[in-house]
Amino acid sequence: MRILGVDPGTHRLGYGVIEVDGPARRCLEAGCLEAARRDPIERRLHVLHTGLAEVARRWRPDHLAVEEPFVAPERGAKSAVAVGQAQALALLVAADAGIEVHRYAPSQVKHAVADYGASTKAQLQRSLRLLLSLPAEPMADDASDALAIALCHLQHWRTAQRTQAPVR
Amino acid sequence: MRILGVDPGTHRLGYGVIEVDGPARRCLEAGCLEAARRDPIERRLHVLHTGLAEVARRWRPDHLAVEEPFVAPERGAKSAVAVGQAQALALLVAADAGIEVHRYAPSQVKHAVADYGASTKAQLQRSLRLLLSLPAEPMADDASDALAIALCHLQHWRTAQRTQAPVR
Repeated sequence: MRILGVDPGTHRLGYGVIEVDGPARRCLEAGCLEAARRDPIERRLHVLHTGLAEVARRWRPDHLAVEEPFVAPERGAKSAVAVGQAQALALLVAADAGIEVHRYAPSQVKHAVADYGASTKAQLQRSLRLLLSLPAEPMADDASDALAIALCHLQHWRTAQRTQAPVR
Repeated sequence: MRILGVDPGTHRLGYGVIEVDGPARRCLEAGCLEAARRDPIERRLHVLHTGLAEVARRWRPDHLAVEEPFVAPERGAKSAVAVGQAQALALLVAADAGIEVHRYAPSQVKHAVADYGASTKAQLQRSLRLLLSLPAEPMADDASDALAIALCHLQHWRTAQRTQAPVR
């Protein structure tokens, strides 16, 4: 099974594809798509949407896991609108390619990462290297966040498989 | 010149295409795309995105005019996220088809509509019938709102043409 984890944004979008085969898991590709900060929003959405659709075409994931960020009311409506825009492009890529979507709250992703023994960004990167047999090169935070979301889904999916409960 | 006006939403999306030739203007098509209320958001975005992309392919508009709704802080983050999602799908259709995007605040659309002598929904439909030589059949509110957004852009665009000022 292949999982595409996505850390959505309207300037930078992190993604990570993992392949799971029984107890084995490995990273097929992880990276960060970037749109020029000065470009209008429609251009940025287009660049990120096209890039993510290419990743989906390349690896044909079965599931897409995306973080549903907590939108702090004090951060204002503008930031909430941007969250919606970023989510929409990831959801459209999934729906267009017929990929099942699973959403996780930041607290769920944090919990999953802690289960793998990581609580800081640096620890996360170390854990990911061990868990996914990645090379020792440093990775963009957006890419490692996306892999953490993919691993969070893997955990929930395995639990659901064991208990036969549907994954939310 | 052809203008595609869009009244975005994540359940219902109004659209209206007008063609302008000198002082003449007519409506080429107007309607409301609907997604099943019970479907998950990714499915709804997919249905509305596909439908709007078809409208754009059919009429090849030069400009897309979209309302940038005022997001009331008291309506909460969830509603702001939905506004962002709805906007994103319209912006992606425009960017994918190379259509210029213009945004208008609800107050600007209201102002333009008032210039055409309408302040209620019923008056708007009457004005649109006269202005765009539409048949007397009633129209979905989402469709007439979308035509109002297209006419608002036409007004701003004509003013800009006259003054040689760039359209925002």
